[in-house]
Amino acid sequence: MSTGSPVGSHRVVSPAGALPQAADRLDSDPDIADDEVRISVERLNLDAASYRQLHTAHGGDGEAIRAEVLAIIDRRGKMHNPVTGSGGMLIGTVDAVGPRSPLGLKAGQKVATLVSLTLTPLHIDDGLARWDGNSEQVPASGHAILFGRSIAAPLPDDLPEHLALAVLDVCGAPALVRRVVARRTHGATTVAVLGAAGKSGSLSLAAARDAHAAKVLAVVRDENEAAQLLGSGLADDIVVADATAPLPLARKVTEALDGRGADVTVVCVDVPGCEHGAILSTATGGTVIFFSMATSFPTAALGAEGLAADVEMLIGNGYVPGHADYALHLFRENPHLRDLFIDRVGTED
Amino acid sequence: MSTGSPVGSHRVVSPAGALPQAADRLDSDPDIADDEVRISVERLNLDAASYRQLHTAHGGDGEAIRAEVLAIIDRRGKMHNPVTGSGGMLIGTVDAVGPRSPLGLKAGQKVATLVSLTLTPLHIDDGLARWDGNSEQVPASGHAILFGRSIAAPLPDDLPEHLALAVLDVCGAPALVRRVVARRTHGATTVAVLGAAGKSGSLSLAAARDAHAAKVLAVVRDENEAAQLLGSGLADDIVVADATAPLPLARKVTEALDGRGADVTVVCVDVPGCEHGAILSTATGGTVIFFSMATSFPTAALGAEGLAADVEMLIGNGYVPGHADYALHLFRENPHLRDLFIDRVGTED
Repeated sequence: MSTGSPVGSHRVVSPAGALPQAADRLDSDPDIADDEVRISVERLNLDAASYRQLHTAHGGDGEAIRAEVLAIIDRRGKMHNPVTGSGGMLIGTVDAVGPRSPLGLKAGQKVATLVSLTLTPLHIDDGLARWDGNSEQVPASGHAILFGRSIAAPLPDDLPEHLALAVLDVCGAPALVRRVVARRTHGATTVAVLGAAGKSGSLSLAAARDAHAAKVLAVVRDENEAAQLLGSGLADDIVVADATAPLPLARKVTEALDGRGADVTVVCVDVPGCEHGAILSTATGGTVIFFSMATSFPTAALGAEGLAADVEMLIGNGYVPGHADYALHLFRENPHLRDLFIDRVGTED
Repeated sequence: MSTGSPVGSHRVVSPAGALPQAADRLDSDPDIADDEVRISVERLNLDAASYRQLHTAHGGDGEAIRAEVLAIIDRRGKMHNPVTGSGGMLIGTVDAVGPRSPLGLKAGQKVATLVSLTLTPLHIDDGLARWDGNSEQVPASGHAILFGRSIAAPLPDDLPEHLALAVLDVCGAPALVRRVVARRTHGATTVAVLGAAGKSGSLSLAAARDAHAAKVLAVVRDENEAAQLLGSGLADDIVVADATAPLPLARKVTEALDGRGADVTVVCVDVPGCEHGAILSTATGGTVIFFSMATSFPTAALGAEGLAADVEMLIGNGYVPGHADYALHLFRENPHLRDLFIDRVGTED
């Protein structure tokens, strides 16, 4: 192939007219178009929801999990879990760059892809022989294709690879939080982050602070998480509350914010049922940013209507220009973020 | 009962701690709290998705549909279709107003409820005997309860009831479109409405015009709908395209807008799979407003990320202050809207 569509539609085998993410099957031919990039794959990071589903479906049998992942990639030309609809990301080395690629990558660079595996053409050539099937981290050999409009970030030299990956995995969240907080021009802005001790949550705290929020409130699920954040300087106040229990949540958030809801509420809790609590915890005229993939569109839409809540609700877009650099910057500037991340993903690979 | 929660949590029978919409079952006791209002019900309007499901499940057998609607209301204390998760709205006459109700209603007023039936305590006392089960419009006798934070609109005297209801049913859309278009302060704003010949779509066209959009583009599915809009003055241009086919849709929208995507794209097409096309049809820095209940949260979130699309995506909140009056105002000012609505809902009850 010599010319490509920037969104990769020339790689769609079926159904006709779909974009790569919506496709049943992609063409992972290693020959690249003029604007494509080929990556030599080193590792897949399956997204947590996808791995959990595979693990449960096969009762934790690593051999069976590995066989199914291979079968999915073989059948679909991408690692797109048909049950969860989710994928993950990958790391590898740039192998070939088309003469008209706009991504600015160079052969030999080590990169992480910031677009989902659900739309990335992928071929595996080692049968995943180095993977025991018992981890989301999948050592792998093969190739993947990036389109003109894909996104990849060079891995930084100064961070352990697994920490850099964990930061890049959620880098859309802090960038969007910064934008939403910074553009509010009327008065002091209060920010409440639900799920504040997690990866996207703690980076969102740091972004809110960086955007000069007047008060940053961390909402966590238990005293253990509260203790992790205490003394980190990431939040002005910490509240323990169940994000799926709307009334107690809203009461605690409002009490912590001097009787008003938050101007910006950020939902990073990856379980269903947080929509109503987030809406009730937000002040009139405020904004809720939903980053959790467990968010239900109709529950949020009908919930706000049913509560006569004049709040703006954003679908957390994982892409904001400069998001990778910004997240890495926050991470380097805040040693407490490193502690929180190590607590989640370990000290080494 | 004498005091109520403004969001109605005192009416939740199960599960404990849920809000009325998330509840399995509500208490429809006719005794009202100090801040509640009791409505004498005259008609239910089942939402289209709910009625379609019931009709399909019972093979169009009106008796069976009626029996199931009665059973749902009896079991749940509300008309909340457990399969679709949707409800509808109702009209009736204000029967009793608690001394501390903030809704401003008076006994004897004829009103439409603007909060979903999925959270409205409801009791039916005529066995729906006047309904043949073959229409979304359900003549009914019984009572319903409004909470302190519910919303109801007095029915206007100057419009046929069924037209007023059809307008109020979608009144959140034009109000939010106006707000989003009006607050864009940098340069001329272009607006594309997908599903522009429908109820929420045509009102969104009128709202975009009212908010001084530089160009209003109507996207419709076929030539029949294009003919309905032609000469109405509601749109500057009309394009026929399938909103579920991302690339042709984006190409046509971009061509009609002089080579750029829309600054604001409004999704009023009530079928799944419009997310990617809407994102691709929107200019960098633009906004997509999703009003369709068929919108998938993860498809929108991962889609924008996968397309490296820097667009803001809003969950269409059905509540914006003043939404009912604004929609009725647009409807009265635009005789072509009346023609479009009559085409959808008929000339009389």
